[in-house]
Amino acid sequence: MPKRHWEDFKPGTVASYGPRLVTREEIVAFAAEFDPQPMHLDEAAGAATLLGGLAASGWHSCCILMRMIADGFINETHSMGAPGVDEVRWLRPLRPGTQVRVRTTVLETRAPNSRPEFGFVRCFFEMIDEHDSVLTTMTSPLMIRRREAGARP
Amino acid sequence: MPKRHWEDFKPGTVASYGPRLVTREEIVAFAAEFDPQPMHLDEAAGAATLLGGLAASGWHSCCILMRMIADGFINETHSMGAPGVDEVRWLRPLRPGTQVRVRTTVLETRAPNSRPEFGFVRCFFEMIDEHDSVLTTMTSPLMIRRREAGARP
Repeated sequence: MPKRHWEDFKPGTVASYGPRLVTREEIVAFAAEFDPQPMHLDEAAGAATLLGGLAASGWHSCCILMRMIADGFINETHSMGAPGVDEVRWLRPLRPGTQVRVRTTVLETRAPNSRPEFGFVRCFFEMIDEHDSVLTTMTSPLMIRRREAGARP
Repeated sequence: MPKRHWEDFKPGTVASYGPRLVTREEIVAFAAEFDPQPMHLDEAAGAATLLGGLAASGWHSCCILMRMIADGFINETHSMGAPGVDEVRWLRPLRPGTQVRVRTTVLETRAPNSRPEFGFVRCFFEMIDEHDSVLTTMTSPLMIRRREAGARP
């Protein structure tokens, strides 16, 4: 399979990646390193908060989502990174033992005149659990190399 | 020191946390786990991209920033988490050996009538290197417990 270019992404396209099982061990290890708030480290502390029990750091959800889309399509794409993230929403807690998948929707594609070598593919990502509840959403503009510099299909 | 409540945060307040040295080892380890794109794993691959050399995953920058603000003030605050992130901008690459600090600016405080137990503290975070260049910015609404439920100072 040849790697995909910007021209290969079409608005409205939907794809799913995963599943992946999220364990208590990785939730606690991530929190200990990057987000050591008690509700991400300890069941009782989590139960006393809005989370209602131990739950992953929202940043951990983002990182798991990133890994799933890297394996899912970004590493088979001429990715040039991203300038940032437009929005993240942590809608429901990600608990130990949850099996998640990621649904990707292409929102729009745009090729700036000022940068002929790449285009933007703005994507909406949803992390979804095994009961079809959406846990986290993220909107992000990916930068992807164009097949032909300056082409405007 | 008593932990801080929502009422203790005032718009316009600026604080700095850090510094922290970011090593090549942690950049590569993070990327291998969460964002295995070649430009975050290998000098030559990074040099061939817009990053111009090995640089941390943008998600790694977010996670380091999170850890620095957790140590800096969130774990001394009655934090109730956050509903998400409003925007992240990865302005300049975070390279191995960079010493970073985080500057936090309180943008606004807001107490919803519907949830008397907490208020929002919307913050603007900047990760800054030792040459005063801003590498990453992030805007995020933190949820912080009110000292007196329903109080509207």
